[in-house]
Amino acid sequence: MILRVGDEYAEPCSFGLLQVIAFMVVSGDWNKIHYDKTEAVASPIGFIAVPGMLAAGLKFSCILGTKFPGHGTVYRSQSLKFRKAVLPKKRYLALVKVEDIDKESRLITLSTSIVSLDREEIYITGKAGVINFKVELA
Amino acid sequence: MILRVGDEYAEPCSFGLLQVIAFMVVSGDWNKIHYDKTEAVASPIGFIAVPGMLAAGLKFSCILGTKFPGHGTVYRSQSLKFRKAVLPKKRYLALVKVEDIDKESRLITLSTSIVSLDREEIYITGKAGVINFKVELA
Repeated sequence: MILRVGDEYAEPCSFGLLQVIAFMVVSGDWNKIHYDKTEAVASPIGFIAVPGMLAAGLKFSCILGTKFPGHGTVYRSQSLKFRKAVLPKKRYLALVKVEDIDKESRLITLSTSIVSLDREEIYITGKAGVINFKVELA
Repeated sequence: MILRVGDEYAEPCSFGLLQVIAFMVVSGDWNKIHYDKTEAVASPIGFIAVPGMLAAGLKFSCILGTKFPGHGTVYRSQSLKFRKAVLPKKRYLALVKVEDIDKESRLITLSTSIVSLDREEIYITGKAGVINFKVELA
């Protein structure tokens, strides 16, 4: 694979309740709005939502590290904006797009987002910076 | 608790191999540099490192959501810079400090970092934005 500015990777994704609970066990983040309906309804979100760090952080970490650009990736930075709450079980699209390539440092800048399957609604946006020492850069 | 600009929360933390493997199972991020010594040595890091999203993402999600400001937190944004590799089992300090409070929107901006126990070395930096609808704001 030769990586070019404009290249895009899209992957449907959803986050089940079991994954939410596994995330809470690993992170220790037992924020009640992610599993307690009474707390969730009383919060500004108003319903049970998937933890943002599970929806975005883990998904992008997985895509960047194992799929696109994949093998050889070292994470340098990630910014995330949680714009709309992500619901358990609903299907979304994880989108990663190459925005810039610095051939000398091998730093690749990518936009990272979680959107609806038809790409009309935007749930999470952000940017990632990775160094990849295996992939060929255009 | 009344939350004020300048308030700080510090918590020693370390990331064991079991937690790294649990992170990989939950995220699907089987990036070899986090468990394969040959791959890790051949990478720019040069040794096995804890996934950045585990070290920072999950730690801050946990602190913000359950400890500081804690109960009532809704995550709005997080930026992360992975400056130095975090080693498995070594002890670090997770630092969260209130940088700004907007009383009207209840948006709290916090600096988030992973540093050495003596605070001399900086491993991960970033900023978080959270809304908290329970805590009293100064």
